[in-house]
Amino acid sequence: MNKQRIGIIGTGIMGEPMARNLMQASYPLCVFSRTKTKADALVQEGAEWMDSPAALARNVDVVISIVGDSPDVEQVYCGPSGVCETITEGMLCIDMTTIAPETAISVACEVEKRGGIFLDAPVSGGKTGAQAGTLSIMVGGKEANVTRAKPVFDALGKSTVHCGPNGHGQLTKLCNQILCGLNLLGVSEAIVLARRAGLDPEKMLQAVSGGAAGSWALENLGPRMLARDFAPMFMIDLQQKDLRIALNTARENGVPLPGTALVQQLLAANQAIGEGREGTQALVKTLQRLANFD
Amino acid sequence: MNKQRIGIIGTGIMGEPMARNLMQASYPLCVFSRTKTKADALVQEGAEWMDSPAALARNVDVVISIVGDSPDVEQVYCGPSGVCETITEGMLCIDMTTIAPETAISVACEVEKRGGIFLDAPVSGGKTGAQAGTLSIMVGGKEANVTRAKPVFDALGKSTVHCGPNGHGQLTKLCNQILCGLNLLGVSEAIVLARRAGLDPEKMLQAVSGGAAGSWALENLGPRMLARDFAPMFMIDLQQKDLRIALNTARENGVPLPGTALVQQLLAANQAIGEGREGTQALVKTLQRLANFD
Repeated sequence: MNKQRIGIIGTGIMGEPMARNLMQASYPLCVFSRTKTKADALVQEGAEWMDSPAALARNVDVVISIVGDSPDVEQVYCGPSGVCETITEGMLCIDMTTIAPETAISVACEVEKRGGIFLDAPVSGGKTGAQAGTLSIMVGGKEANVTRAKPVFDALGKSTVHCGPNGHGQLTKLCNQILCGLNLLGVSEAIVLARRAGLDPEKMLQAVSGGAAGSWALENLGPRMLARDFAPMFMIDLQQKDLRIALNTARENGVPLPGTALVQQLLAANQAIGEGREGTQALVKTLQRLANFD
Repeated sequence: MNKQRIGIIGTGIMGEPMARNLMQASYPLCVFSRTKTKADALVQEGAEWMDSPAALARNVDVVISIVGDSPDVEQVYCGPSGVCETITEGMLCIDMTTIAPETAISVACEVEKRGGIFLDAPVSGGKTGAQAGTLSIMVGGKEANVTRAKPVFDALGKSTVHCGPNGHGQLTKLCNQILCGLNLLGVSEAIVLARRAGLDPEKMLQAVSGGAAGSWALENLGPRMLARDFAPMFMIDLQQKDLRIALNTARENGVPLPGTALVQQLLAANQAIGEGREGTQALVKTLQRLANFD
């Protein structure tokens, strides 16, 4: 069976393992990255280097982009030597970066003007999910196009949900980040109170994890906080980018999000003292500093 | 086998089904309740009515109290015709109310002065957990006493964790409520943004539930919010009592809990318009009102 040729734009923390999973699934792969050295390992493993998004799009059936932020996605598609310069009729463009919903909609519009198809398909699951191919994929776009992209998604994730038209994948991801942020704050506050009040925090986690207080954050970030392991599962700087988009989107929709705003402000305190590249679980350190202990 | 006689003080939403599970487990049961009619059903089912906590304690080997708040527990143990008047050497007293840790410690002291044994053992799991006998029980007290009480706990819950000395069961429960409160706020904010931005909130829940955003609250309260079902799993008024204790305890320990305080203030807005007896998932209504929609 002749598989579709896929081109990946962006071979960072997420893009690199995702590219590897696509090669594993026997997709012929092209790669482009702003920093060429970031693609070296993939090229050695058999991916073909392309000199620009435009060059990549000329050589593939499916473009997948996973870069930094909204302006990067605009640049990759609509900038000089961007994907839009070489889009062919019916080409599938899947952006998996977390960006502003309105950017997803405007890029979709540019891609479709040129006969291409656009899906916004941000992911949850972080580096480990990308490596294991167990990402949760939240897709915005037309049903038929989501169906067409399904085999590609299946190589990358364990769950793909079609959330609505373009932009709705991104909106869903923002909801995801709101939930992650507040669950994280709960775990941090519970642990700081436990520590300060002399309670054994491991006993506390054990006692509350199975019930109504339970969450992914409690199970995965709680033990890391206790072990003072702040290596990133997901980096504070990235969570802040996502929460900034969530708060902007909320404001544009006339929705106050007081809890999300609080999480964002407290994580800003981590960033202010140089902890932005630590994992989000480092939020517990901000709360400990508020309570005047380490 | 001659089972120990148990006396239950407080036959409300939690106490009544717990009493029933103890009778099911063949424990001879005495009951006392401030409002006698609340014990009528249990008495018809074979429990023996006692006219006061003191009368009850005179007739049993194990006292279990599950009443309203800290002053009620003090009253039941240390007030006129209280348990302390008739405690016998080695009698086991288990308070399962959620109260202030310092009250648990002071009542424990009074009980032990008279030769009794005290455990603070608040629970999580609500009415349904009490009925099904699947409560999570968080125990403070001496190890040997917890071991002695274990068969009783096993008749009431699916998990019993010994968290530390007296007061530590209560501290653990406060951590539990902090977690529940912030997880709840996350679900509420995510749903309000989804609704307001035109996203299908059911699709959103489906897309995010299995990943890093997942929680008991998302799975259990999210669908109720969408169905506008505000019948209590756990009542706002009770959550507010627990959060008040958590915030007091935090203040006494020099711990700011900005997220918990925010949840408490937002739930106060529910109470202010008469929604205190609804389930905590009604928090979503406060956030919707902030965003000027129902």
